[in-house]
Amino acid sequence: MKVGIIGATGYGGVELYRILSNHPFVEECILYSSSEMDVPYIHSFPHLTELSDHTLRKIDVEEIKNNITVLFLATPPGVSRSLSPQFTESNVKIIDLSGDLRLKDRNEYEKWYKRPSAEEELLAKAVYGLSELNKQVIKEAQFLANPGCFPTATILGLAPIVEKGLVNEQSIIVDAKTGVSGAGRNASHATHYSEVNENVKIYKVHEHQHIPEIEQMLHNLNEKITYISFNTHLIPMTRGIMATIYASLTDSYTTEQLLDLYKDYYQHSPFVRIRKQNEFPATKEVYGSNFCDIGLKIDERTGRVTIVSVIDNLMKGAAGQAVQNFNIMNGFEETTGLYSAPIYP
Amino acid sequence: MKVGIIGATGYGGVELYRILSNHPFVEECILYSSSEMDVPYIHSFPHLTELSDHTLRKIDVEEIKNNITVLFLATPPGVSRSLSPQFTESNVKIIDLSGDLRLKDRNEYEKWYKRPSAEEELLAKAVYGLSELNKQVIKEAQFLANPGCFPTATILGLAPIVEKGLVNEQSIIVDAKTGVSGAGRNASHATHYSEVNENVKIYKVHEHQHIPEIEQMLHNLNEKITYISFNTHLIPMTRGIMATIYASLTDSYTTEQLLDLYKDYYQHSPFVRIRKQNEFPATKEVYGSNFCDIGLKIDERTGRVTIVSVIDNLMKGAAGQAVQNFNIMNGFEETTGLYSAPIYP
Amino acid sequence: MKVGIIGATGYGGVELYRILSNHPFVEECILYSSSEMDVPYIHSFPHLTELSDHTLRKIDVEEIKNNITVLFLATPPGVSRSLSPQFTESNVKIIDLSGDLRLKDRNEYEKWYKRPSAEEELLAKAVYGLSELNKQVIKEAQFLANPGCFPTATILGLAPIVEKGLVNEQSIIVDAKTGVSGAGRNASHATHYSEVNENVKIYKVHEHQHIPEIEQMLHNLNEKITYISFNTHLIPMTRGIMATIYASLTDSYTTEQLLDLYKDYYQHSPFVRIRKQNEFPATKEVYGSNFCDIGLKIDERTGRVTIVSVIDNLMKGAAGQAVQNFNIMNGFEETTGLYSAPIYP
Amino acid sequence: MKVGIIGATGYGGVELYRILSNHPFVEECILYSSSEMDVPYIHSFPHLTELSDHTLRKIDVEEIKNNITVLFLATPPGVSRSLSPQFTESNVKIIDLSGDLRLKDRNEYEKWYKRPSAEEELLAKAVYGLSELNKQVIKEAQFLANPGCFPTATILGLAPIVEKGLVNEQSIIVDAKTGVSGAGRNASHATHYSEVNENVKIYKVHEHQHIPEIEQMLHNLNEKITYISFNTHLIPMTRGIMATIYASLTDSYTTEQLLDLYKDYYQHSPFVRIRKQNEFPATKEVYGSNFCDIGLKIDERTGRVTIVSVIDNLMKGAAGQAVQNFNIMNGFEETTGLYSAPIYP
Repeated sequence: MKVGIIGATGYGGVELYRILSNHPFVEECILYSSSEMDVPYIHSFPHLTELSDHTLRKIDVEEIKNNITVLFLATPPGVSRSLSPQFTESNVKIIDLSGDLRLKDRNEYEKWYKRPSAEEELLAKAVYGLSELNKQVIKEAQFLANPGCFPTATILGLAPIVEKGLVNEQSIIVDAKTGVSGAGRNASHATHYSEVNENVKIYKVHEHQHIPEIEQMLHNLNEKITYISFNTHLIPMTRGIMATIYASLTDSYTTEQLLDLYKDYYQHSPFVRIRKQNEFPATKEVYGSNFCDIGLKIDERTGRVTIVSVIDNLMKGAAGQAVQNFNIMNGFEETTGLYSAPIYP
Repeated sequence: MKVGIIGATGYGGVELYRILSNHPFVEECILYSSSEMDVPYIHSFPHLTELSDHTLRKIDVEEIKNNITVLFLATPPGVSRSLSPQFTESNVKIIDLSGDLRLKDRNEYEKWYKRPSAEEELLAKAVYGLSELNKQVIKEAQFLANPGCFPTATILGLAPIVEKGLVNEQSIIVDAKTGVSGAGRNASHATHYSEVNENVKIYKVHEHQHIPEIEQMLHNLNEKITYISFNTHLIPMTRGIMATIYASLTDSYTTEQLLDLYKDYYQHSPFVRIRKQNEFPATKEVYGSNFCDIGLKIDERTGRVTIVSVIDNLMKGAAGQAVQNFNIMNGFEETTGLYSAPIYP
Repeated sequence: MKVGIIGATGYGGVELYRILSNHPFVEECILYSSSEMDVPYIHSFPHLTELSDHTLRKIDVEEIKNNITVLFLATPPGVSRSLSPQFTESNVKIIDLSGDLRLKDRNEYEKWYKRPSAEEELLAKAVYGLSELNKQVIKEAQFLANPGCFPTATILGLAPIVEKGLVNEQSIIVDAKTGVSGAGRNASHATHYSEVNENVKIYKVHEHQHIPEIEQMLHNLNEKITYISFNTHLIPMTRGIMATIYASLTDSYTTEQLLDLYKDYYQHSPFVRIRKQNEFPATKEVYGSNFCDIGLKIDERTGRVTIVSVIDNLMKGAAGQAVQNFNIMNGFEETTGLYSAPIYP
Repeated sequence: MKVGIIGATGYGGVELYRILSNHPFVEECILYSSSEMDVPYIHSFPHLTELSDHTLRKIDVEEIKNNITVLFLATPPGVSRSLSPQFTESNVKIIDLSGDLRLKDRNEYEKWYKRPSAEEELLAKAVYGLSELNKQVIKEAQFLANPGCFPTATILGLAPIVEKGLVNEQSIIVDAKTGVSGAGRNASHATHYSEVNENVKIYKVHEHQHIPEIEQMLHNLNEKITYISFNTHLIPMTRGIMATIYASLTDSYTTEQLLDLYKDYYQHSPFVRIRKQNEFPATKEVYGSNFCDIGLKIDERTGRVTIVSVIDNLMKGAAGQAVQNFNIMNGFEETTGLYSAPIYP
């Protein structure tokens, strides 16, 4: 099978390349870039010396239709919105890592992203690809909206108790922490080493564009949920997301009961690992892997549960989950080419 | 004035030394250690070469009584409890940076610290030294319990709205992040570089010994408050604490109104800086300084306020506030020897 | 094939486990530890949750002889010296990651390591396993001395010009930089995050135990070489070694000529990548991989060449090269289970 | 005394501001910027909230001549070359932190900087401000070329043995390591956190513009020296430079003899600290301070000495030394406003 990556010079793109170039069912991986063309890929990424002899190609829709089975879009907001519709009449399957196809409500998109939304028709075809929760519809999708990094960690952390209605629906607070690679490869003041190092910084307070994405999915799981509080912090590290989640329980449970519920809920999800009582995952424990690790504990004093959910933002939060969806869409074993241990330390 | 530091080989101790050795009213700073004796201080801290010719001394209560006006205890839990009472009958003023004298309720101490509490009599004499809130009683104190790092950031971030009763008293959630120096200088698996770097880790979930300290003070400000939710995370950086605080408002206010309230509340507090609307402090913006910077914003969607409070854990969270209290106790200008700009970047 | 790892709870051990548990010809990987026994491996390494159900076993020589084909020793100095001889009469092949079997001259070992050397007889059987240079003898080895991390980067960086006699034999200076994981997993002041972060530190000046190992091998390649200057620095990162090598050329060459020589010399070495002119490798460009990347440039002003050689210290500098040698010793393709792209960024 | 800073929004500029705003003889510090005008300084640097009410001003030569006694140029290359001559006929003293006035040979400047040199006349007036070595001429200077960061660490590390002729003049090799702040505040791929973190990178191999500056000064100290080998590496830290220096000794000395020579040579230099035998400085041990710490050791095996010299690149390597020169030029005590302890840890 031939696959293509548009946006191969970004961090999401190169992580896709790392996985797909070792994927047993991928015959060839063709790389496209709108910013650089006809230059060897290793100019952008010398760590791939002798591992890649690819040249970055210009995006050519007809060529893609003729050659490519699955096309990954690792592109900035706004690209997928105009590019994806050109493949409606083709057999090409699109896996879009940007946010363009995730929100069903066009007004929400325009409010949070502050740019024009994709067309209704395209959004209607797009399937939200949180692999663990939407596996059945993912199998049939032509247009796959790959989830955002924060939504992946947060929704997986909340799904079991939200779906079962065990938490007060207005009580959910998510305090997220992320490594810098989530901001992409473009140079900016915000990603300058001297500004990030030895620093913690909150950003986009109450305004992160992943908020409506999380709320949309939680609402699907439990229609009583209409909003959450969500903030995110920039941490001096390259990879990793931790979502620390606080919610009030509707009844009195034990930590053990909840852990059992989670283990049961994710029993067929090879990439979700529920930690044992009194053990909490650290971001480094999923570094370079596609796992989402979850720990939780009830605070009897307050009646709240603290849930800790961690992922590698470039893997389960982007390229890893995209390949997981690629596997599901093509009828491959979900873990194909993905089931490797985290790098530690 | 001659002052002494017990526990000079720890991070709190050496930060005290840095400040006190430049303090205009400190004539001499005598250093004590129970682990190392009769060795030059620069053996422990070569960065003080040519800046210190001190030798670490054995702790000798009588000598201290005769020579020292103010004694700083930068010691592990349990030391102050037995050492402080020996100075009751003397004129020596004690500034204790450990947690031993902070909690008025002995049961609470024993429950959270899992060790014997100080005697009732000593606790009755101890004044909780959150400089901004307790200035009047600090002036008269002989035994000063210097606040913990997390309580300092958290309480300063909450005091104005808690005291005015603007928040739902059961809604407070504090998600804290700290640099590694807060764990002290002893080597351990938890502070090993390879385990901390490129990692975020939650620890002591629901069990941090600073929880009762925060609750005690918030309860003093507003007796309706009896508990909070509090968690803390280890961040790959050396210095800095951020408390991200979430609370539901009892009524509808604007962010501007709250900022005005905060500015007013801290108008006589030179070390508290309230940021302007839509600006939030990062930990690096107080690095090496005694400032506590606060930013806040109301989320109209959820009716909650997000408050961000940052300090340098070794300065305003330990040695800096200790010297601020030293100034207040001795009738010096509060900012003496302390009012320097953060190091940036 | 069943293999064993002694010292599985260290960083070298867990990296071996990561590779071997995915190796196509390894049927089972049995883990031994002298410090922890009968406890699940994931107690030490929770990042392996659901990936390992191993229990750490007590070291039992007879059991190993009966069950294990290849035994990896990822042990502190002094262990292999006494353990290895017990397998002389067996069919077990030993791959020793410690320094015990590397030096042929027992006096040198005792001088630099300051501890008793292995017996002459054992040393005589041991083969120095720098895969690229000693492939023929590695094939036949029962006792394999896996090279040190600094020697690997340094010797690979120097071999072509040393063997061809292109450098002044007394002019070699190696300035090395290493991440902290090279110091092992034990907690110490030297690996404390707050001491390492935002810091560069030189250590073991002129006294590093890897010096005689480098000299022994360079001398084998060119008997005129009897010493080098070598120093190493601790860098605030977890993984990675860079050897910056300076040497005076015996004649006038161009950078291009030397690069051609290197490409030719390593044409059958899949893990050595020679960078093109004016390109130098950074440590991150081999992160998590078994590559050794080399760049070089002649300085016409001084007649010296600067050679930059980088590896991941836990991979090509330890576990990766050990598995490469394992492949060679067993007649497998050299790259089996090892040829994966670096993790970037 | 009123002073001005041009280029106040860079890292050198803000470090100058930190020192000068606490300098006892500086009445006012006026800030100029060519990129931002009429905006509050704290827009660029919120860590100065309540510490600065300055507004950035447009550069106005006449206004400066009328108001300012000493003008600091913390500007990119090329600015001082055209700006400085406008003050020739005034009483304004110029302290230029850029490289424009450092090299006496215009051809050298144009060769290494690849841009037009300052005029002969201006260069003739400029004094090279390595405070410890040129104190007498600094006192009389109107135009002061403040040294580069690498030259400061390197020359101070070499001066005693070079001036005394104790080293082979062709044997000097300098392997330097620097934190990222030396690259300035502008965002670029090279300073992107995700590219720098967990990485060591060599750059400008054999081509660093500080090479001729070092050679010029060493040649002044000992005319037999005409070149050195010099390379520099980017380290994942914000501040700090270490120069590891290798040189062959002309005769046999002991480490102790050399240390005595250094102590003697720098006996009147309050900011140079010679470490005792077997002790080497780490960069963190001068963090935030104006010290240059030096350790050294002879390697009897090779006849070479290893010298380690560390500075904080923004302090002794830029703003700190600029103020030290400011003190000398104005007849103040050399340490005024500068003699504070490093921040540790």
